[in-house]
Amino acid sequence: MLNPSDRKLVEVCYTPGQYELYQEGFDIVVVIDVLRATSAITTALHYGVDKIIPVATVEEARDYQSKGFIAGAERDGQVVEGFDFGNSPYAYMDPKMKGKSVVLTTTNGTKAIQMAKDKELVVIGCLNNLDLLCEFLISQHKNTLILASGWKDKVNLEDTICGGAIADILLETRKFRSNEDSTVAAKFIYRSAREHLWSFLRSSSHRRRLIKLNIQKDVKYCLTLNTVPCIPILRDGALIKLENDVMDQKYAQNGSMNSKS
Amino acid sequence: MLNPSDRKLVEVCYTPGQYELYQEGFDIVVVIDVLRATSAITTALHYGVDKIIPVATVEEARDYQSKGFIAGAERDGQVVEGFDFGNSPYAYMDPKMKGKSVVLTTTNGTKAIQMAKDKELVVIGCLNNLDLLCEFLISQHKNTLILASGWKDKVNLEDTICGGAIADILLETRKFRSNEDSTVAAKFIYRSAREHLWSFLRSSSHRRRLIKLNIQKDVKYCLTLNTVPCIPILRDGALIKLENDVMDQKYAQNGSMNSKS
Repeated sequence: MLNPSDRKLVEVCYTPGQYELYQEGFDIVVVIDVLRATSAITTALHYGVDKIIPVATVEEARDYQSKGFIAGAERDGQVVEGFDFGNSPYAYMDPKMKGKSVVLTTTNGTKAIQMAKDKELVVIGCLNNLDLLCEFLISQHKNTLILASGWKDKVNLEDTICGGAIADILLETRKFRSNEDSTVAAKFIYRSAREHLWSFLRSSSHRRRLIKLNIQKDVKYCLTLNTVPCIPILRDGALIKLENDVMDQKYAQNGSMNSKS
Repeated sequence: MLNPSDRKLVEVCYTPGQYELYQEGFDIVVVIDVLRATSAITTALHYGVDKIIPVATVEEARDYQSKGFIAGAERDGQVVEGFDFGNSPYAYMDPKMKGKSVVLTTTNGTKAIQMAKDKELVVIGCLNNLDLLCEFLISQHKNTLILASGWKDKVNLEDTICGGAIADILLETRKFRSNEDSTVAAKFIYRSAREHLWSFLRSSSHRRRLIKLNIQKDVKYCLTLNTVPCIPILRDGALIKLENDVMDQKYAQNGSMNSKS
């Protein structure tokens, strides 16, 4: 346990639209879009995609496509016309994608990633990599802002819950502290929800939207904890798996992941 | 119980900065600033202040002051220099204010009121008038947006809890419905907090700010439910007590308040 003055900050920002109000003084930004962008990105890198290039607009994705890149695009929960896939995690398990660079644009998640790109480190979080991600963040011990992607700049439940879970785990170590009410509230929502995530999220507007789109299987996948041992990080404009990066060496030396991975 | 299609919307918006994303289609806006603007306004009108003129800036408040108005101004939890009071509810119990018009500007609350002023009806909510306010909103049965004032456009805990309480009570009647995750989340935070509001709000950043200012007595007052039987509404740019308004007649005919008041 550290003295309060030695603790690092961990805070939750609910939407990209509020990012500017919260971002000052943070070294690490964890971008979350549980349904489904960050779950898909984490899955893709775990299944062998070499890198994912997140772009904010469909036009950028088409540009890359015309240059021969594999590209995915999702808007309003659906695959955009002219693209073969969107942000379903299952699409990225395709062996044909192994070793490839994939371009991706999504309604909320890839915009949030772009927004945070000038920070020292941008990390991708979801429920699928929750515990591993938290171990990594604890080992880094820096001021950490969790940026929920929300839904078109409105608050959403699943990202708030995931953000609350990360904050709760970091705060429990007593190596972190929090000043913002958004963080306290997210933590309490997570604690209300954690025993029955699936039924809790019945009330989620986005899940209702996805049910209409008949992608229950995706939703169930994205709401399952700790199934994907992979931490995507942003390097030179692309998302890569942490172990492929120099930081991994530092992290391996630290050794805190060894017991789990 | 109404058919889902006959139910009216009730939603919670966490900050004035998000108001534009949420406001479309709402007839009634309930502005909340529990610590302390809307608690003070409700108290003032109950104790006999004739009307409160909410203004967004300190300069406007000074203008009114120079014309002989009684004026209060609060910024960052403190009374602004040159003003006799800010947003402490106790200041408004002064018999000298009885029958007077009072001008008020506060860090968050009065800005939120200005923002909503073009809606059919703007109502002031707080924990002090919670049940009475909800009865009124139920009797009106219109699309109702609860606008939390937050803290400098960030989410705050006490306004989110109060908003969640109002939404919960309205939704329980089955005469209202909700589409937004912000509303679901606020409702769950309220339910987590309601049995131990005081200790729950220990974690609140704003309460911590106020404790530093040594106004524990105010905080305790503002966090006590159903102590002030008064509903302030906005009419012609000023906040007045509901019973002084023509709407009161409609409401009295409806009779739903009679059992309680």
